[in-house]
Amino acid sequence: MKEYFMEPKQIVVIGGVAAGASFAARVRRLNEHARIILVERGKDVSFANCGLPYYIGGEIQTRGALSVQTPETLKALLNLDVKTHTEAIRIDREKKQVYVKNIISGEDEWLDYDKLMLAPGASPRIPDVPGIHHEKILTLRNLADMDRISEVAKAGKRAVVVGAGFIGLEMAEQLHRKGLSVEVVQYGPQVLPQLGKRMAKLLENELVQHGIVLHLNDRVVRYENRNSILECFLESGTVLKADFVVLSVGVEPESRLAREAHLVLGKNGHIVVNDFMQTSDADIYAAGDVVETAHRLSNERTAVPLGGPANRQGRVAADHIFLGEKARPYPGSLGTAIVRVFGTTAGTVGWSENALEKNGRSYGMVTVNDFHHAGYYPGAKPLVLTVFWDRDTDVLLGAQAAGQEGVDKRLDVMATAIAAQMTIDDLVHLELAYAPPFGSAKDIVNIAGFAATNKRDGLVDTISELPDNPDAQIIDVRAKAMADADPVAGGINIPMPALRNHLDRLDRDKPVVTVCALGKNSYFASRILKQNGFDVKSLEGGMKMMTTGRAGLSGKKDE
Amino acid sequence: MKEYFMEPKQIVVIGGVAAGASFAARVRRLNEHARIILVERGKDVSFANCGLPYYIGGEIQTRGALSVQTPETLKALLNLDVKTHTEAIRIDREKKQVYVKNIISGEDEWLDYDKLMLAPGASPRIPDVPGIHHEKILTLRNLADMDRISEVAKAGKRAVVVGAGFIGLEMAEQLHRKGLSVEVVQYGPQVLPQLGKRMAKLLENELVQHGIVLHLNDRVVRYENRNSILECFLESGTVLKADFVVLSVGVEPESRLAREAHLVLGKNGHIVVNDFMQTSDADIYAAGDVVETAHRLSNERTAVPLGGPANRQGRVAADHIFLGEKARPYPGSLGTAIVRVFGTTAGTVGWSENALEKNGRSYGMVTVNDFHHAGYYPGAKPLVLTVFWDRDTDVLLGAQAAGQEGVDKRLDVMATAIAAQMTIDDLVHLELAYAPPFGSAKDIVNIAGFAATNKRDGLVDTISELPDNPDAQIIDVRAKAMADADPVAGGINIPMPALRNHLDRLDRDKPVVTVCALGKNSYFASRILKQNGFDVKSLEGGMKMMTTGRAGLSGKKDE
Ligand SMILES: Cc1cc2nc3c(=O)[nH]c(=O)nc-3n(C[C@H](O)[C@H](O)[C@H](O)COP(=O)(O)OP(=O)(O)OC[C@H]3O[C@@H](n4cnc5c(N)ncnc54)[C@H](O)[C@@H]3O)c2cc1C
Ligand SMILES: Cc1cc2nc3c(=O)[nH]c(=O)nc-3n(C[C@H](O)[C@H](O)[C@H](O)COP(=O)(O)OP(=O)(O)OC[C@H]3O[C@@H](n4cnc5c(N)ncnc54)[C@H](O)[C@@H]3O)c2cc1C
Ligand SMILES: CC(C)(COP(=O)(O)OP(=O)(O)OC[C@H]1O[C@@H](n2cnc3c(N)ncnc32)[C@H](O)[C@@H]1OP(=O)(O)O)[C@@H](O)C(=O)NCCC(=O)NCCS
Ligand SMILES: CC(C)(COP(=O)(O)OP(=O)(O)OC[C@H]1O[C@@H](n2cnc3c(N)ncnc32)[C@H](O)[C@@H]1OP(=O)(O)O)[C@@H](O)C(=O)NCCC(=O)NCCS
Ligand SMILES: [Ca+2]
Ligand SMILES: [Ca+2]
Repeated sequence: MKEYFMEPKQIVVIGGVAAGASFAARVRRLNEHARIILVERGKDVSFANCGLPYYIGGEIQTRGALSVQTPETLKALLNLDVKTHTEAIRIDREKKQVYVKNIISGEDEWLDYDKLMLAPGASPRIPDVPGIHHEKILTLRNLADMDRISEVAKAGKRAVVVGAGFIGLEMAEQLHRKGLSVEVVQYGPQVLPQLGKRMAKLLENELVQHGIVLHLNDRVVRYENRNSILECFLESGTVLKADFVVLSVGVEPESRLAREAHLVLGKNGHIVVNDFMQTSDADIYAAGDVVETAHRLSNERTAVPLGGPANRQGRVAADHIFLGEKARPYPGSLGTAIVRVFGTTAGTVGWSENALEKNGRSYGMVTVNDFHHAGYYPGAKPLVLTVFWDRDTDVLLGAQAAGQEGVDKRLDVMATAIAAQMTIDDLVHLELAYAPPFGSAKDIVNIAGFAATNKRDGLVDTISELPDNPDAQIIDVRAKAMADADPVAGGINIPMPALRNHLDRLDRDKPVVTVCALGKNSYFASRILKQNGFDVKSLEGGMKMMTTGRAGLSGKKDE
Repeated sequence: MKEYFMEPKQIVVIGGVAAGASFAARVRRLNEHARIILVERGKDVSFANCGLPYYIGGEIQTRGALSVQTPETLKALLNLDVKTHTEAIRIDREKKQVYVKNIISGEDEWLDYDKLMLAPGASPRIPDVPGIHHEKILTLRNLADMDRISEVAKAGKRAVVVGAGFIGLEMAEQLHRKGLSVEVVQYGPQVLPQLGKRMAKLLENELVQHGIVLHLNDRVVRYENRNSILECFLESGTVLKADFVVLSVGVEPESRLAREAHLVLGKNGHIVVNDFMQTSDADIYAAGDVVETAHRLSNERTAVPLGGPANRQGRVAADHIFLGEKARPYPGSLGTAIVRVFGTTAGTVGWSENALEKNGRSYGMVTVNDFHHAGYYPGAKPLVLTVFWDRDTDVLLGAQAAGQEGVDKRLDVMATAIAAQMTIDDLVHLELAYAPPFGSAKDIVNIAGFAATNKRDGLVDTISELPDNPDAQIIDVRAKAMADADPVAGGINIPMPALRNHLDRLDRDKPVVTVCALGKNSYFASRILKQNGFDVKSLEGGMKMMTTGRAGLSGKKDE
């Protein structure tokens, strides 16, 4: 077969990490003869951004492991011309040139391009707060940042992490791992705003159990440096003292170059691209944290600043340049994300409840608890899964999961199901791999399908909070010991096995709410009551989800 | 809402474990007022068949954990009337009655049914071999069998396992765990016939490394009992001495009742059901190991004797009886299965290569190696994934995976993608959860999508064995140290980074085969050579897959 995609001749790439290096690598595989110039402002290319926190904490011990490639290996393996310490400063779209400058030597030049790739990523957001520009207030994006944080962490004892998103949570854990005392300040009412509040609570409990102090609904309004101690003044009046601060309050696209070149940007400053990662200039592509793309589930534009999308978007752009009609479009981003906080993992894919609300979608939602593998096989760990779907079409819209084990697996299954536009009925019959160490005959994903379709089909009505209606009869169907140990306010304990014989204890004219540990027996109880003519609702997720975190979610039976 | 599905009045269920008990449980939740009679020949109901081997080996220590429910709890929780030790002997379809007999007391009766569920499962196949009916030649299906094996295992020292399917492999591991010396006899050329031979090899190595002796391509032709030692005479002439034998050579549907009632059976004796698990008699349903259903990917009939299908089929039947038009059909089985053998796990979903060949399908196939999470994060374990697809439509047809960690996750993702009729292009852009402990920016599932589409698009030609063409130039692009340590017969070592500068060492008139450790660098090398005009093929899966098992697959870099 003759290779036909030999043009164009010179490719310039701005940014040499996830999107940029992946693009360049794929370009080289598609075109052995093009000249490929990778321009990187920093000292390093192709490094594992996502590993930075883990090196700081000491889980990753070899710094070199973070350099997936170096300029030398990129030359040797892929024949890329890498220019590090080199900043791209201006694009001349008419002449198809980029002006670049070595920020150490000061040398500059205009580079010609046939095609230009913009992969400059995103930079940590720096809130406009008095005192913030201090050398001990640090952000984490690259190896140099990592080294700085490692250094201050070695010297210091007390760290404040501002922002409890994915990176903030990882940093809190890793700094704690290094032996520092850590406090986390989060503006909103919970960590990880994307996550449902009960799942967020599991992560919060995990932090607290490790002695990390969490300041929710608060924010730093002023930093002061007193005797080389940083004082962080919170809105609430609290003052935190720290040897250093790690700021992790989100990222902003590095789109200055694009803006100045008059490429079309989105409302938050991201570069707008088409499905092949082409900007408004057909010879300029963009990929990674700097772009916004289609959301995979809607026509909305979305920015998902994560490693997977960056890598694959870079690859799509290369294909579009060189593969002709064989190139396939980027199908949009779902926003699959995961974080481990000590022994608990949580993650999300697709729409969150907030996003659904904001978009006025008519959605259904269900939360189920189960174990990550067969309960009878040792080591089964509790797991909670929430699924969102479109009420009109039953098509899946999003999912969230949290637990100690197997969270990543369920998120990946849901990410696949959502990408495939499966419905809640499809979840019922996913045929997942089952042997005792790996799953259950009815996996929690199937259970979510059962519970979702049960709701849709009117088999059960659920509530997610205990009712404040004083008329409501709250029936706690857990075993007596469990009910005694952790009573439900205003609840009457009728253990599940006794329910059928004690219906006469209930007032048929008043609404009933059934309650159990995990939401399964309360569903069973609600079926009995409903068919006996009661107006009944089941407390979805059960009491464990209401009150507790990891410790509380360790019971083995739903009684 | 009024519950409208109040009929019928009496439901009889034959078989009280996976399909039967799940059916009965769902029936009860759908209809509080029906009488539900569960007829079970054995002593136990609702037990965890899949856990039996693990109790024998001591991983599961509490026998009670295997009884997911008991007759008493089924009564208390679900108001089921359970008759254990009771065999269903005859069905009178005219009168809608089943004749049952207590095999201990001898009491018998005719039970009326409005709807009958047949969930008698399957029984272990007993090959017709002289001497096989010996009390120390055992099969494993229920708790009583388990107790028998546990007992002989306590007394014995040497076990022979006949048959290396899923249960045979689990038994081999668990008996070894108990301290027995174990030999496995397998008729075919490999363990787990469904699995590709190289993945099977990984499991075989795992057995051998634990001192288990494997007799492949062999079978027992005669058993003899000499001084309470069982002698197993193999076809090859080898004689194995054992204190007991575990037979695990497949299962046969327990369809005698159905056959005698003239229900339609399939060619292997399974009960034929429609998509709602109805047999040829509309008042008789069947589910579980006893039935054949549609294959999810084709119109073929298939029997998948596994726990997940059994449980969900039971539930479908209950829905069909009671949910009216809200009932949804069973979508067919994919045959997702997984097994752990010591530190290695392997599994399969959808069509296998054999099945594709047998069915004359035009399929594509790719095998990729990678790690189960980011290579730079400690503990990354090698993983191998094979994907099959339809050459005409690019739709996924099957997948197999093996490795130490994360095999279940990839199988589940593939099971979901296959059920959704996704294509190899869809794999490219699955947006899977990525943080260093959980995955890679390009997960092995994405890589499989890349590699599959690369093959389809003609970017690479691959071979799966080293060529015997003496003309072929075999170029080993691994690092010199690796090539020296484990040389490729007839190979020339040109490490990847040196390749571009040494093209003149190759004869342009002879075909080239590129070889590396895992199949990635050989692909890269083949791209260079192809674009330089060579006739080149890449050895898919690399040398590690050619030669070795777990030990060999532990290298971290593909050089
Ligand atoms: C601490 C941390 C942890 C993370 N953890 C995860 C995780 O667990 N999972 C996940 O999916 N994602 C994670 N991410 C996000 C992921 O790393 C990014 O989404 C991804 O790296 C984006 O790729 P990119 O190529 O767009 O940008 P980057 O990887 O940031 O690369 C952009 C490069 O462009 C260079 N550059 C910018 N402007 C110019 C210019 N004008 N001239 C020359 N060079 C320029 C920059 O110096 C930078 O090196 C993490 C990020 C960080 C910082
Ligand atoms: C050792 C072992 C390990 C396994 N491991 C796995 C695994 O890891 N993953 C997996 O998915 N599957 C596994 N399976 C398979 C799984 O257990 C079966 O697919 C599932 O139990 C089938 O359910 P069933 O209800 O059809 O049959 P069964 O669970 O076998 O139940 C059928 C019941 O019917 C009773 N019965 C039969 N005939 C009559 C009659 N005439 N009258 C009254 N009662 C009758 C039998 O006594 C039996 O108890 C394993 C099976 C075994 C034996
Ligand atoms: C290092 C880097 C340059 C590598 O780019 P890359 O070569 O495209 O990526 P990989 O090493 O994963 O290899 C993927 C390629 O190998 C092929 N491949 C991988 N394993 C293979 C196997 N076993 N058999 C055949 N092909 C294989 C893939 O098909 C793909 O090639 P293609 O794009 O031509 O189809 C780039 O990913 C990078 O800089 N990464 C670090 C930064 C980063 O990603 N940060 C964010 C996350 S921490
Ligand atoms: C024990 C047995 C009778 C249970 O049957 P079951 O009650 O249908 O199954 P589960 O205990 O998994 O519960 C599933 C039910 O609870 C519901 N449920 C489970 N967790 C829930 C939660 N957290 N919230 C709400 N509902 C929940 C499900 O929706 C489902 O109800 P539905 O079918 O009405 O929709 C049956 O599965 C059995 O005998 N199993 C052992 C044998 C076996 O399966 N062997 C093979 C594998 S080892
Ligand atoms: Ca369960
Ligand atoms: Ca990789």
